[in-house]
Amino acid sequence: MINPRLDDLHRRIPGLRLETAPAELEYYGRDWTRRWTPAPLAIALPANAGEAQAVVRWAGAHQVAIVPSGGRTGLSGGAVAANGELVLSLSRMNRVLGFDPVDRTLTVEPGITLQAVHEAAAEHGLAYPVDFAARGSCSIGGNIATNAGGIRVLRYGNTREWVTGLKLVAGSGELLDLGRGLVKNSSGYDLRHLAIGSEGTLGVVVEATLKLADPPPPTQVMLLALPSFDVLMQVFAQLRDRLRLEAFEFFTDRALHHVLAHGGQAPFDQVHPYYVVAELAMEGEGDEAAMLAAFEHCMGQGWVSDGVIAQGEAQAAQLWRLREGITESLARHVPYKNDVSVRVSAMPAFLAEAQALLAQGYPQFDVVWFGHIGDGNLHINVLRPDGMDDAQFVAQCEQVTRILAQTLQRHGGSISAEHGIGLVKKAYLPSTRSAAEIEVMRGIRRVLDPYGIMNPGKLFDP
Amino acid sequence: MINPRLDDLHRRIPGLRLETAPAELEYYGRDWTRRWTPAPLAIALPANAGEAQAVVRWAGAHQVAIVPSGGRTGLSGGAVAANGELVLSLSRMNRVLGFDPVDRTLTVEPGITLQAVHEAAAEHGLAYPVDFAARGSCSIGGNIATNAGGIRVLRYGNTREWVTGLKLVAGSGELLDLGRGLVKNSSGYDLRHLAIGSEGTLGVVVEATLKLADPPPPTQVMLLALPSFDVLMQVFAQLRDRLRLEAFEFFTDRALHHVLAHGGQAPFDQVHPYYVVAELAMEGEGDEAAMLAAFEHCMGQGWVSDGVIAQGEAQAAQLWRLREGITESLARHVPYKNDVSVRVSAMPAFLAEAQALLAQGYPQFDVVWFGHIGDGNLHINVLRPDGMDDAQFVAQCEQVTRILAQTLQRHGGSISAEHGIGLVKKAYLPSTRSAAEIEVMRGIRRVLDPYGIMNPGKLFDP
Repeated sequence: MINPRLDDLHRRIPGLRLETAPAELEYYGRDWTRRWTPAPLAIALPANAGEAQAVVRWAGAHQVAIVPSGGRTGLSGGAVAANGELVLSLSRMNRVLGFDPVDRTLTVEPGITLQAVHEAAAEHGLAYPVDFAARGSCSIGGNIATNAGGIRVLRYGNTREWVTGLKLVAGSGELLDLGRGLVKNSSGYDLRHLAIGSEGTLGVVVEATLKLADPPPPTQVMLLALPSFDVLMQVFAQLRDRLRLEAFEFFTDRALHHVLAHGGQAPFDQVHPYYVVAELAMEGEGDEAAMLAAFEHCMGQGWVSDGVIAQGEAQAAQLWRLREGITESLARHVPYKNDVSVRVSAMPAFLAEAQALLAQGYPQFDVVWFGHIGDGNLHINVLRPDGMDDAQFVAQCEQVTRILAQTLQRHGGSISAEHGIGLVKKAYLPSTRSAAEIEVMRGIRRVLDPYGIMNPGKLFDP
Repeated sequence: MINPRLDDLHRRIPGLRLETAPAELEYYGRDWTRRWTPAPLAIALPANAGEAQAVVRWAGAHQVAIVPSGGRTGLSGGAVAANGELVLSLSRMNRVLGFDPVDRTLTVEPGITLQAVHEAAAEHGLAYPVDFAARGSCSIGGNIATNAGGIRVLRYGNTREWVTGLKLVAGSGELLDLGRGLVKNSSGYDLRHLAIGSEGTLGVVVEATLKLADPPPPTQVMLLALPSFDVLMQVFAQLRDRLRLEAFEFFTDRALHHVLAHGGQAPFDQVHPYYVVAELAMEGEGDEAAMLAAFEHCMGQGWVSDGVIAQGEAQAAQLWRLREGITESLARHVPYKNDVSVRVSAMPAFLAEAQALLAQGYPQFDVVWFGHIGDGNLHINVLRPDGMDDAQFVAQCEQVTRILAQTLQRHGGSISAEHGIGLVKKAYLPSTRSAAEIEVMRGIRRVLDPYGIMNPGKLFDP
């Protein structure tokens, strides 16, 4: 080591695994965004909470910026280290620490993947119901840092609802044991909920206790083809009011086009402008009949042009892949991503404006829409044309995003539904949060991170 | 007016209703605790959010302490004004402002009673599922300030889960529009959750948007008599795993004794040490049979000595009154209340210690236990013997509470499950929250309430 600060880190934590090779800096210094050049100081990979805390204390003493790092599947640059930060990777802290059958809780280290949590819950005949396509790579710590949503929010809520305990090493170096798995605890401010969704700017999660749910009910998965966006909300209302929706996901023909080009299997002979994957709980005797009746009603109204109900698990998985494969199928086009939300009731009015805006703003680009209609959450991916310079492409996209943010503001929406603000959406935070709110957030950040070392530059500037 | 500060308040808000008559000061200056002598400066009763905000700004300018005030059914002294504070009563702000059928939300003013919210939800064929005995008097603003729990937490969670939007006038005088009814919003710290449960120390709630649930399923209500506390957890586990529990409430023979003395109807010929009111969802065809099988299993194991299943709604209501009448039946004894929680799994070990402690600590007192076993929440009421001086009684109780708090701390529990800390439990906050956490809370309070005017002296000292 030639860096005296890193020498001191070695002295303080003799067993700490520390990486400084260029390939490691490159690998750990970025997330799924590709807009910044990784340039971390080094990568620290603590083996336990004690080592993680010692790293934060060292960083405070030396004024070194820390970027907490999980599976780095983030889409907002929250885990990017492009300015000489120390990456604090939790990837070695990936164990299940305990299961309690009475409390129905699973206690885990933050580096565990979402899929490993699903599997650990299933081993005990229970379920962790937060789910999305990056399950195999993303970490629970990262899920907590962004309050991850996904495809089951409609029925089970966001990550926030499932975290009953959180150990956080604050930027101050203090280890805070928050919530502690209690169902009821009205004794002062809920700092656990403050930490959830704070994108590593208040501290780093070193342990989480997750509430588990009953195993999911048997379900039916259907794919519907829709003639227009206008009927989408009506189909949603029908299914929500008449059936028990486990998921309701939509995507456009452009999205399907890319999935099929990536190896997916065409579900219908004809092309339709919009598609919905709906998953329905089948618990009672009348559920199957109710589903068919709702399906026929939608067909009769002309809301649904075609549809297929999965016969068996293999076909259900196949239908789901058409939705879940979208992000991966778009990756090679390095899309500019918008992840916006409004109240469900505000969706039609917002959409009319947004569609007109984007058609006008991006006449030359391929724009792919998909998302979680039941949560008021739309993903709008703008694909970079082959051969176009990235900086130029992003600059053009940002011009439209500025207007989109104003549209969102008028409709009471958010510029980040579930990806977080990170670096990517920082300029637009004032469209979602008022100046007074941002001032309060600044003050709170100073309380928990007095040295300004926790993920500086992300979310908002000090 | 002879008080120049109140003169200025009149000048600033000409239409503001302000009460200063002794009877009003007495009435608005206290909550359901009876330990402090009300001594407010005056009572302000704003008609809308604008007036409430102007009152807070006036208070900041004059350094007048504010006590936000709802239905004043609190049991921790959170709404007591005993030191010349201005009581900011939200009781005139009690309207439903809006209902959205697509979002399934109800927007209300903070002074509306819980029962009025239930009724408004039912008018639209939906339900607001937070519920407890004070429903007719308590206000939503107070429910939010304490993150109120109650008898349906087991199935529906605490108040926190049902608030999707919150307008808060912070101590700074800023109006913060938090959450705004969005299902998904990952754009910075969730200040809404920070405000929920903050007991009026960060600001005053002037509007809330509540999420509504599907109407409750048909249910069966049963009352079970149990031979000992040890079997209670086993009965709970049986019913939870085999049936769909909507509520599971326990109380002791001493509790029943007081309810019966207050006019309740004896459910069984014999006296039993423990009782449970369980409410079970009856949605599917097999549910009735499953309930009877679980009931018989518990009888067969000797866990249940006697039981009755309500025949019709009138009897169900009668059985519920045995549980819900407890607090009212004890009121004339001015009980010293403990409202503690542990993880459900920690309940048996904690209980064994707590029972021994209380038997030893209160040999001369009537101690009444009841609560929400499925949430790990116990209410322990110590009754003041007739003729005993209140100060002496409280002093004796506090000696035991000190030890109880240590016991709770060892078991990772909380000194306040759902009543809040207020004045009553302030001395014991450090048993539930670490010194570092309290320091963080102090810092956050300074950020939102820079003049130190919001409910000072409650929760913790500056």
